[in-house]
Amino acid sequence: MKAKIRVPFFETSVKNYIYGDAVMAYAKAADAAAKEYDIDVIFVAPYTEIRWISENTDRIMVFAPYMDALRPGRGMAEILPEALKAAGAKGVVLNHSERPMTLNALKKTIDRANELDLITFVCADTTSEAQAIAHLHPDILNPEPAELIGSGKVSDMSFVKEVISAVKAIDPAILVEQAAGITTAQQVYDFIMAGSEAAGAASGILTSPDPFSLLNEMIGFVRKAKDELAKRNR
Amino acid sequence: MKAKIRVPFFETSVKNYIYGDAVMAYAKAADAAAKEYDIDVIFVAPYTEIRWISENTDRIMVFAPYMDALRPGRGMAEILPEALKAAGAKGVVLNHSERPMTLNALKKTIDRANELDLITFVCADTTSEAQAIAHLHPDILNPEPAELIGSGKVSDMSFVKEVISAVKAIDPAILVEQAAGITTAQQVYDFIMAGSEAAGAASGILTSPDPFSLLNEMIGFVRKAKDELAKRNR
Amino acid sequence: MKAKIRVPFFETSVKNYIYGDAVMAYAKAADAAAKEYDIDVIFVAPYTEIRWISENTDRIMVFAPYMDALRPGRGMAEILPEALKAAGAKGVVLNHSERPMTLNALKKTIDRANELDLITFVCADTTSEAQAIAHLHPDILNPEPAELIGSGKVSDMSFVKEVISAVKAIDPAILVEQAAGITTAQQVYDFIMAGSEAAGAASGILTSPDPFSLLNEMIGFVRKAKDELAKRNR
Amino acid sequence: MKAKIRVPFFETSVKNYIYGDAVMAYAKAADAAAKEYDIDVIFVAPYTEIRWISENTDRIMVFAPYMDALRPGRGMAEILPEALKAAGAKGVVLNHSERPMTLNALKKTIDRANELDLITFVCADTTSEAQAIAHLHPDILNPEPAELIGSGKVSDMSFVKEVISAVKAIDPAILVEQAAGITTAQQVYDFIMAGSEAAGAASGILTSPDPFSLLNEMIGFVRKAKDELAKRNR
Repeated sequence: MKAKIRVPFFETSVKNYIYGDAVMAYAKAADAAAKEYDIDVIFVAPYTEIRWISENTDRIMVFAPYMDALRPGRGMAEILPEALKAAGAKGVVLNHSERPMTLNALKKTIDRANELDLITFVCADTTSEAQAIAHLHPDILNPEPAELIGSGKVSDMSFVKEVISAVKAIDPAILVEQAAGITTAQQVYDFIMAGSEAAGAASGILTSPDPFSLLNEMIGFVRKAKDELAKRNR
Repeated sequence: MKAKIRVPFFETSVKNYIYGDAVMAYAKAADAAAKEYDIDVIFVAPYTEIRWISENTDRIMVFAPYMDALRPGRGMAEILPEALKAAGAKGVVLNHSERPMTLNALKKTIDRANELDLITFVCADTTSEAQAIAHLHPDILNPEPAELIGSGKVSDMSFVKEVISAVKAIDPAILVEQAAGITTAQQVYDFIMAGSEAAGAASGILTSPDPFSLLNEMIGFVRKAKDELAKRNR
Repeated sequence: MKAKIRVPFFETSVKNYIYGDAVMAYAKAADAAAKEYDIDVIFVAPYTEIRWISENTDRIMVFAPYMDALRPGRGMAEILPEALKAAGAKGVVLNHSERPMTLNALKKTIDRANELDLITFVCADTTSEAQAIAHLHPDILNPEPAELIGSGKVSDMSFVKEVISAVKAIDPAILVEQAAGITTAQQVYDFIMAGSEAAGAASGILTSPDPFSLLNEMIGFVRKAKDELAKRNR
Repeated sequence: MKAKIRVPFFETSVKNYIYGDAVMAYAKAADAAAKEYDIDVIFVAPYTEIRWISENTDRIMVFAPYMDALRPGRGMAEILPEALKAAGAKGVVLNHSERPMTLNALKKTIDRANELDLITFVCADTTSEAQAIAHLHPDILNPEPAELIGSGKVSDMSFVKEVISAVKAIDPAILVEQAAGITTAQQVYDFIMAGSEAAGAASGILTSPDPFSLLNEMIGFVRKAKDELAKRNR
């Protein structure tokens, strides 16, 4: 069975900004905040750190940044789904704008992830791409206009709302995250209040003056939004 | 400083045949044989297991199956050289026939490896490719005709001798290994006696009825060849 | 303005089976049949023959087998959309199973084609891929399960009907073709009678004993189906 | 038999700067200058224009900007060597920095070109890449540091001389061209006088105020260098 993820959740990755011990320190900070605020956190780790982080954290869900669709056997240097699972990964990011996939490979890789109960987190660019991907039924869809990634500029609310409703019209079970260009905890709060089931940040945190406190604050603001939404729905 | 490797040495990888605990068991067997025979062994591990194996073995030298040339920063899903180094990798395989690289990327990636003191193990196909790659001055060159890989058929001795002398004529410091299609310890012995500084096997071991004992026997035969060569040179 | 295409139409390509004069002879045969039966025919030609065929035929619509999304300027060896247009291409095949594209590149390339009034003919594999691509609004969608291409086995009618209705539910303006594995004129007729707006064949014709007469017969059967459908709709 | 090329020669391409009729006009200008100065000129044309230009010029040798190594048969959108040959191409550019090839593909494609008597024009970046490629024995080697291409900055003479002697030491039959960053006829002259068997320009001509006259002047300066060299060797 796939790991359960409770909404709203937070997602972060380290991309290639840090490595080794620094990734572990960042993962520990994410884990502490996940516990402090009782918020689910997806932590996208480099392949080399998936096992280490999985074994040394309690609450974060470790995801791989990509995987191939191949099956055990020959080959070299591919990312074998079974190896990720064995190392403790709970899910995988697919079709990130820095690692775009053909539609056919994306479909096959989502199928492989489902076979191994790995949660699929699929990135899209425009609304039409998000709609396209919705037909492949990933667990989580992250529409982020490529020009915003790492830019410090966020999507505008009309795009956010449009893309959520476009995706849900095709498959209401898909969770929709906003992540492009997020640099403040307030943006995290705003996107969730606007209907996103998750918010995420990587560059925005790792290039900030105090990454650990910003990470904590962002996860705290997911909690704040969650409480506010619960109040409204009462 | 790069790790020192003593010739003749043995090299093995798991490709995608096994994953998780089975890789660790195989690595432990390689480590035990490396100690038993006092022979250096390169162990090419999946990215996810590099750290785990490095921390839990004593003698084998863990290599990554590939890396990118990029530097810390943006990106997603690339194999960052610094991350491999931090995880304990002592070297990296480049240009494997299942992960061929452009000449330009190969040059840049060898430069990056040198910068981080990672040993470069570069695969070639024909003699002319081996000569070409010799001009990029990798530490180890592994010429293996693509049609032999995983085939259970080995290179003939005339190819082996021709390619060694062709490579040494360009750069005598490059260590030359034979690995394609090796399935028996006798072949390991023969290739080293013919002038190879190393022999390697992956499919030949992992698809055999008793991989651990074949692995041990192969490493033992590297010892046997080493002793025989020492005797001759006395 | 894009060239107008009347349904039902026929589509053929030469892939790499033939080249040079043989392509021209095949194009002339397609052109003659298009005139004989007054049926629109898309002829996918190698880049090198697009201009030559466009200038020496009257009725067939010459398509390129692929193009890049780049704009005039630097680069080398890319397929510049403006160059195809200038050579006489009326449209372009995208995402063929032998040249799969990332979703993002596919979107951008469809946009470029629209900008230049080139008709987009986009291939898909499964129904879910066809639905995905429908959100990118190509002019023609050709769902062909990869395992059938060049196999001599055709899609079954339930797949054909399912995929047509799935695509039309998203965008009724998209024309849907069936092409995978077609080897007989009767199959052409059957697919069109089942609701396909077009049928196509390449390997099935070019590896047959008498390609020209089979090509003529297939285009004749498009006519036959067209007449039959007209009669029914009277 | 391959077309004979007399040294020193000139080479130009249009990259993606121009297309259609503008390519033909540029080809006609190159052809006229080739005749005026009795100098061999390689003209790298987009695939779509190879046949048209070959049939409408007398002296220039039309080259393709790339080709694949595959053989006639299945596939789609590849550049089939036989199709280039049939269209009139006399040679092919391989491994351009905007279309880098794996070492293995480069070797196979050079072999295919030799099989069809197509002249191979292979690009390299640094001296070590040029040496590497020399072992694959192309007909022409064009070492051009990637950072100079389209930059308007030329290689310095010490690089030019070093790379020529490094290549000739491996295979004296390889013709060495200089092309990176050339913007003036004087540079063409200087590179040839320094030992290059050819000079080439693309961006430098096509982004100049008067491309046709600059093209003519450059080819004229190849003549001037040729006459000067002949005088010296008398």
